[in-house]
Amino acid sequence: MTGEELEFDVVILGSGPAGLQAAVHAARTHVRVAVLGKIQSSSLFRAHIENYCCMSSPIAGEDVLNQGREQARRFGAAMFEQDVLGIEEAGDGRFRVSMESGQVLLTWTVILSMGISRNKLNVPGEKELLGKGVSYCVDCDANFFRNQPVAVVGDGSAAASGALTLLLTASEVYLICKDQDVSEHLGYQVESSRIEVHRGRKVKEILGSTGVEGLVLDNGERLEVNGVFIELGAKGAIELASRLGIALDSETMRYIVTNKKQETNIPGLYAAGDICGPPWQMAKAVGEGCVAGLEAATYARQKSGKLVKPTR
Amino acid sequence: MTGEELEFDVVILGSGPAGLQAAVHAARTHVRVAVLGKIQSSSLFRAHIENYCCMSSPIAGEDVLNQGREQARRFGAAMFEQDVLGIEEAGDGRFRVSMESGQVLLTWTVILSMGISRNKLNVPGEKELLGKGVSYCVDCDANFFRNQPVAVVGDGSAAASGALTLLLTASEVYLICKDQDVSEHLGYQVESSRIEVHRGRKVKEILGSTGVEGLVLDNGERLEVNGVFIELGAKGAIELASRLGIALDSETMRYIVTNKKQETNIPGLYAAGDICGPPWQMAKAVGEGCVAGLEAATYARQKSGKLVKPTR
Repeated sequence: MTGEELEFDVVILGSGPAGLQAAVHAARTHVRVAVLGKIQSSSLFRAHIENYCCMSSPIAGEDVLNQGREQARRFGAAMFEQDVLGIEEAGDGRFRVSMESGQVLLTWTVILSMGISRNKLNVPGEKELLGKGVSYCVDCDANFFRNQPVAVVGDGSAAASGALTLLLTASEVYLICKDQDVSEHLGYQVESSRIEVHRGRKVKEILGSTGVEGLVLDNGERLEVNGVFIELGAKGAIELASRLGIALDSETMRYIVTNKKQETNIPGLYAAGDICGPPWQMAKAVGEGCVAGLEAATYARQKSGKLVKPTR
Repeated sequence: MTGEELEFDVVILGSGPAGLQAAVHAARTHVRVAVLGKIQSSSLFRAHIENYCCMSSPIAGEDVLNQGREQARRFGAAMFEQDVLGIEEAGDGRFRVSMESGQVLLTWTVILSMGISRNKLNVPGEKELLGKGVSYCVDCDANFFRNQPVAVVGDGSAAASGALTLLLTASEVYLICKDQDVSEHLGYQVESSRIEVHRGRKVKEILGSTGVEGLVLDNGERLEVNGVFIELGAKGAIELASRLGIALDSETMRYIVTNKKQETNIPGLYAAGDICGPPWQMAKAVGEGCVAGLEAATYARQKSGKLVKPTR
C-alpha cells in the first residue's frame, strides 16, 4: 500500500473522545472523514469514567472508546489503526498526512486531537499500577479513593491544588515534593489541614500488585497509601505542532492555542481535547471535538468549492 | 417554605446537559451545588440523540436527562424542580436566587444554562408534531430523514445552509421563505441543486398525526414531506441576562458572551450550553458545562475563603 494516496475532507489525528466526537459530527454532514489512531493511545483506555453526562453507571474507558469507534464508523468515518508519521502542506490548499503503512491521505482539513502525554515519575510500579491506584488526574479520579490514604507527587500548583482537593475525600493526604517551594502554592490553607508534606523527597517505588499498597521514598520511608496521584504536568504533541508552525499557549508552551471555533493559527488546521490544555475531562474533549468537526467540515466544503458527496 | 434561605456555592439554572454536566463536575469537588429546572424545559426532552460520543445506540432525550439527574444527585447536587424568578446581588459578594416556591438560594456563583427558545412558526401541527417530524435543528436531525422529502422554513443563512445540508441526505428539499432574499445565502450552489424554493410564501399548517405527512402553504399548495425544519433563529434568556447587565454577543444580541473559562463579564456568573450560542449540540453543551462547573467551584472556594465541606 506504500505510496497509495487517498482523498478526504477531514482527517482526524487521535481517536480519543475529542477525535471520535469530531468524526461523528463531521461525518454526519457527509464529508469524507478519516480517523487515525490506536485505541490504546487514548488516556481514557485504562480509565474508569463516572463523571461524563449523562451516564447511569460508571463504565470502563476501553468500552467507551469501542462504542465511540463503532458510532463514528456507523456515520461513515474511515478508521485507521495507525499513527501519523507527518503532515505537510500539499501546495493546492490541502494537507498530506503520512501514515505508518506508507499510505498518504490528502485532505482539506486536519483536526489535531492526539491528547497529551503526562510527565512520568519513571519508578517501578508506576506503569504496572496505572488505573489500579496510580493516576495522573486528581479532578478525574479523587472520588475513587474516598476515605482512603493517598499521596500526591509534584512540585507545582497543580500538585498543591490536587492535595487540597483530595483533602475533602481522602482519609490521609501526603504531598511529596522534591523542591522546597510547594507551600507557597498551598498558602495558609495547608497550616490547618491534614496534608502531610514531605519536602525535598523523591518517590523511589510504588508498591502493590493488584492495587497500590504504598510507596517508598528515597530516604527509605514507606507511606501506606491506596492512591498515588502524579502531578508533574503534561505536554501536548508539541513536536508535530511546532514543525507545522502552530501557535502554542504563551504561558506553558505546551498546548495548542485555538479560538472558540477550535481553529489554530493555520487555516484548515483545528485542534480539540486535551492537546488544547486542561481540564483533562472527557466532557471538555467532546465539546471541543463537536465544534472542531462541524467547523472543519464547513471549511472543507467551502474550500473544495462544492458540496462534497459521500463516498459510501 | 416562603422566605426560607438556603446556602450554596454553585447554583445552576437549567437542567439540560450543560447544567447537569456542570453539576457533576462542581459537586465532585465537594462544594454545595443546586440545580434548578424542570426536565421538560430542556430542548433535549423530546429529542432522540444519536450523535453524542460514545453511544452504542440512539437514545431518547428524556432517558438521557433522567440518567443525568440521577448522576448529579449521586455526586451530591440538590435538585429543585422549579423555575427561577430572579437573581440579584446580595451585597456580600453572593447572589440571591429566588425560586417559584418562595425559597431563596444564597450562592457565591451562578451558572446560566437555561438553553434557548427557538422562534416558532405558530401554525397548527407545529407543537403537536415536535419530535415527530418537526425539528428546529438541521444539524441535529437531518440524518433521521434519509431519502425522505423535507422542507426548511426560514429566511436567513441558517435556513439556506440547512437546505444545503439536507440536500445530501433527503430525497427532496423544499425551502419556504416569505422574503425574497434567501437565494443570496444559497449562492451559486442552488442553481445546480435539487432545492425547490418557494419564495414569498408562508406555511399555514403542518399535517400529520403520528408523524409529519405534509404541509400547506398560504396559497393553498400542499407539499408532501416527512420532515419540517423550522429555522427562524432562537433567543437565549436575554431578559434575565440584561437585567443583570450580562454582555451579549454584539452580532445577534441573542447569546451570552463568555471566555474559554465560561466566565461572563460579571464575576461569579458563568454561562454554558445553548444559551452561549450555536452549534446546538449536546456535546458542546456538556463541554461548556464541564468547564463552567469546575471554574465556578474554584471561584466559590476562593471567594468563601475556605475549603467548603460537603453538607451531606
